[in-house]
Amino acid sequence: MSGGELNPPSLAEAINAKGFTGAAGVRIVAIKPGHAEIALARRDDLLQFFGHFHGGVITALADQAAGIAVTSALPKGRIGVTVEIKVNFLSPADGIELIARANTLKMSGSIGVATVEVFSRSESAETLCAFCTATMRSLDLPGEFRQP
Amino acid sequence: MSGGELNPPSLAEAINAKGFTGAAGVRIVAIKPGHAEIALARRDDLLQFFGHFHGGVITALADQAAGIAVTSALPKGRIGVTVEIKVNFLSPADGIELIARANTLKMSGSIGVATVEVFSRSESAETLCAFCTATMRSLDLPGEFRQP
Amino acid sequence: MSGGELNPPSLAEAINAKGFTGAAGVRIVAIKPGHAEIALARRDDLLQFFGHFHGGVITALADQAAGIAVTSALPKGRIGVTVEIKVNFLSPADGIELIARANTLKMSGSIGVATVEVFSRSESAETLCAFCTATMRSLDLPGEFRQP
Amino acid sequence: MSGGELNPPSLAEAINAKGFTGAAGVRIVAIKPGHAEIALARRDDLLQFFGHFHGGVITALADQAAGIAVTSALPKGRIGVTVEIKVNFLSPADGIELIARANTLKMSGSIGVATVEVFSRSESAETLCAFCTATMRSLDLPGEFRQP
Repeated sequence: MSGGELNPPSLAEAINAKGFTGAAGVRIVAIKPGHAEIALARRDDLLQFFGHFHGGVITALADQAAGIAVTSALPKGRIGVTVEIKVNFLSPADGIELIARANTLKMSGSIGVATVEVFSRSESAETLCAFCTATMRSLDLPGEFRQP
Repeated sequence: MSGGELNPPSLAEAINAKGFTGAAGVRIVAIKPGHAEIALARRDDLLQFFGHFHGGVITALADQAAGIAVTSALPKGRIGVTVEIKVNFLSPADGIELIARANTLKMSGSIGVATVEVFSRSESAETLCAFCTATMRSLDLPGEFRQP
Repeated sequence: MSGGELNPPSLAEAINAKGFTGAAGVRIVAIKPGHAEIALARRDDLLQFFGHFHGGVITALADQAAGIAVTSALPKGRIGVTVEIKVNFLSPADGIELIARANTLKMSGSIGVATVEVFSRSESAETLCAFCTATMRSLDLPGEFRQP
Repeated sequence: MSGGELNPPSLAEAINAKGFTGAAGVRIVAIKPGHAEIALARRDDLLQFFGHFHGGVITALADQAAGIAVTSALPKGRIGVTVEIKVNFLSPADGIELIARANTLKMSGSIGVATVEVFSRSESAETLCAFCTATMRSLDLPGEFRQP
């Protein structure tokens, strides 16, 4: 995308610390340009009727992972925002933690597409519980959000 | 779907009171078979980096509205769960409240499809901020979740 | 989108006359800025295994309708191309003709989102057989495709 | 999915020989349970305005690949039909042939989810031009379509 400097991981940390993801406790596991792995521990206020992680919470995690993956490959001062997101729920997310692994398929002009696999982790195993595709567009980070 | 009795609104209330939607304060505005309107007031822990409602929270609200719309048209003792959900984000959700209005397009066998319009409400106007399609499947409500 | 001149319907006709849509016989019924209605008559080479219209053909029609709807609201010399498309198949497309009606939900910068309802028309009725959401981006029409 | 016999590749061939896919010349490259690779050579009546493969044709190929992948892992006498399909277009499909590779992510009850990568092949390279997710449901093959 750029011959120049890419966004530093500290931007992802700043994004993540705010609002819903900060309050829910989303944790960054690993970032490299175009890729992100983040995790979220089970908590009662993140579940649905049957006691599994709520589909919206799974989507929020996938969205965040896609955004970090795409943003981490953008030039410094640019950020990826979500145009649309699509999630298939494959099995009950009944583990103790969710892990989302995002991979940028393509950046083309200002449009990026990422896929995200979300796993439900129990004591003994990881199960693929959701598969997501997200379309992002990049824009200039407004001045008040820029990092020094 | 049925010549018999449909699910009562109290099932939607029970679903809604639990977990994420209960903790976030999702409020049921209106339900009729195949349709649902629900709302969610702005709160700091529901936002994203720029201070708008988080895309995952918007999706959670749309998902919940679709589930209630579909479930409300199912025979008593059946519930709709999400197979997949797709959301386009159309404008910043920067209002004081989100309102989601879901409409069941089709029930066919155990599969139902709903669309959801999500509006961001300010003091003076409602703006369409997201459009969602959800595919649900119906299953028997497990015994421990049945209402008397 | 523009204080100036919009694309003329002749652009949609030129687009439609070419390649797959020309060969399949896609017919423009009505265009106004942001909206399009197009139709496709049943033919053996447009069907699937069970003798209904093929899902890919339904998607092609929906895609074309979305493209025309979005392009018709763009300034002269711009065209909408598809970023992603999503179709739910709601009932068998077993009629004598398909009719696709597209409606632009939102244009924001270079991104447009349209929904398309596809109906299967029999002698006596129209049945909603598919529902589609398409995300388009606008770009400058390359010189060799411009109309005088 | 089954302790018994799975669908034979001849079912995929029969499906493929009919209607749109037969007329367009879709070619089966390889099938194993849960996976399918199929191809489609460039032809003028499969293109769009700019002379690339039409998005609807790309979707038809992806849909077919997903259907064969899911059906090939179903018990004899069952077939997968498409509930919904979603395609992101990643780069111009301007090659001499399309190749679609489908992979079943999950079968759960009667619902299956597959992803499909579509490549545009030129003389010298394959380029990922589209990424697709499809949700299928399985049903009993009607008697008149059963193979001896």
